[in-house]
Amino acid sequence: MSQKLHVIKIGGSVIENHQLLHHFVEAFVKVKGLKILVHGGGNVATAMGEKLGITPKMIEGRRITDEETLDIVTMVYGGLVNKKLVATLQSRGINSIGLTGADGNLMLARKRPVRAGIDYGLVGDIREVNVTFLSELLAQGKTPILAPLTHDGHGQMLNTNADTIASETAIAMSKSFEVDLSITFEKQGVMMDLENPDSLISTLTYAEYERLKSEFRVHSGMIPKLDNAFKVLESGVKSVRICRFDQIGEPDHGTILQA
Amino acid sequence: MSQKLHVIKIGGSVIENHQLLHHFVEAFVKVKGLKILVHGGGNVATAMGEKLGITPKMIEGRRITDEETLDIVTMVYGGLVNKKLVATLQSRGINSIGLTGADGNLMLARKRPVRAGIDYGLVGDIREVNVTFLSELLAQGKTPILAPLTHDGHGQMLNTNADTIASETAIAMSKSFEVDLSITFEKQGVMMDLENPDSLISTLTYAEYERLKSEFRVHSGMIPKLDNAFKVLESGVKSVRICRFDQIGEPDHGTILQA
Repeated sequence: MSQKLHVIKIGGSVIENHQLLHHFVEAFVKVKGLKILVHGGGNVATAMGEKLGITPKMIEGRRITDEETLDIVTMVYGGLVNKKLVATLQSRGINSIGLTGADGNLMLARKRPVRAGIDYGLVGDIREVNVTFLSELLAQGKTPILAPLTHDGHGQMLNTNADTIASETAIAMSKSFEVDLSITFEKQGVMMDLENPDSLISTLTYAEYERLKSEFRVHSGMIPKLDNAFKVLESGVKSVRICRFDQIGEPDHGTILQA
Repeated sequence: MSQKLHVIKIGGSVIENHQLLHHFVEAFVKVKGLKILVHGGGNVATAMGEKLGITPKMIEGRRITDEETLDIVTMVYGGLVNKKLVATLQSRGINSIGLTGADGNLMLARKRPVRAGIDYGLVGDIREVNVTFLSELLAQGKTPILAPLTHDGHGQMLNTNADTIASETAIAMSKSFEVDLSITFEKQGVMMDLENPDSLISTLTYAEYERLKSEFRVHSGMIPKLDNAFKVLESGVKSVRICRFDQIGEPDHGTILQA
């Protein structure tokens, strides 16, 4: 039987806040066995852009990555956020190693083609995850900490959504490991009513999700996340869970998706 | 006999300039065998600090690393400069991996103690280089690209001079490899007269260096670099050379130091 592997995704807001980061780290330390952490950092990048007098370029709610923006996300995701996490985890006895997709050719991507006249700029769609390299690191007792950056193999770094990095990593690693993917945020999971903590949906089937969507009862911000998460579940990953960042070590918390 | 290993240090100015970077990369690709690259980035960090409205804090010509400055160097060295190099080298077929001292616990340091009332801030003096980890990466065909950042093992990133990172790496690796250290910059090597390219000193013994120093014929900026370089030569490293960044593949160029 193949070994268990946890792929855990956290958002940038956890990293910005000392106390939340502390709670996350304590929970992460307790997760037994092999693990890979994927982090975002969009808020930190936006704040840094503002300090540098650069306003984010958006088309239909999506950030456009021009060269200036790419420099900012490379600094913030690959440097500031990634190394803060790595140093913090090292202090808790986790031999973490921070990586972008360029490091060790971990994630090869291609610049997203212009579609319907929309050019997202320097955004990468993943072509290949280097399973061998990740497996070697895990076998050496290291915990990979992945920044949401890829490269095109021709010298260009590319910006890639952290949820996508987590999903593609989970799918690719599921050929060799029994993968549990946890997508975390600050809510307890998928809620029927965001204001009511008792409205957490503990198990969500695809049929139920489709029904809720058709009744417009799913928050619009959750739809791409959930569409993506169900896709992952169909692609060989053993379990997909949406939970709060400090409940990653408690498998009975959050919303567990079912095909 | 132990394997040859090149440890090469480049300054930040090479990375800032597209054309210089191109020349460096072409030379680096041609260096045969195992290699480790160490980069600086002080100018890029200073420029970024200025854009963010932060003026570098200096005491006796040395940069003081406060928390704001540490964030900048972590972003610039660990993110921007490091990943640009890694992505560029990947495009030339070098399976490079960018690392700070926190990644894989590569370089453990301690915050420099306050001496004679001078507190350098978040600056790290190296305690230990992780030779096992670097050797594993080299054995896997990877080329480590080291940013001038360390960590203290208690969650704190620290700023460490790139020349020191290169020297300590060369010394530590010399227990297992036959190490050639090349410290590069934009001049051809150690010159008797900076204005005269024919005044390059091709071989410099320690006795000769001491004599030149006593006659005040060594440029003050070169003294710490050369003092450090001769110390490395005494510590088991096979050869130390000071040369231009695009002549790293040509062993007969630059200034070769002799004990």
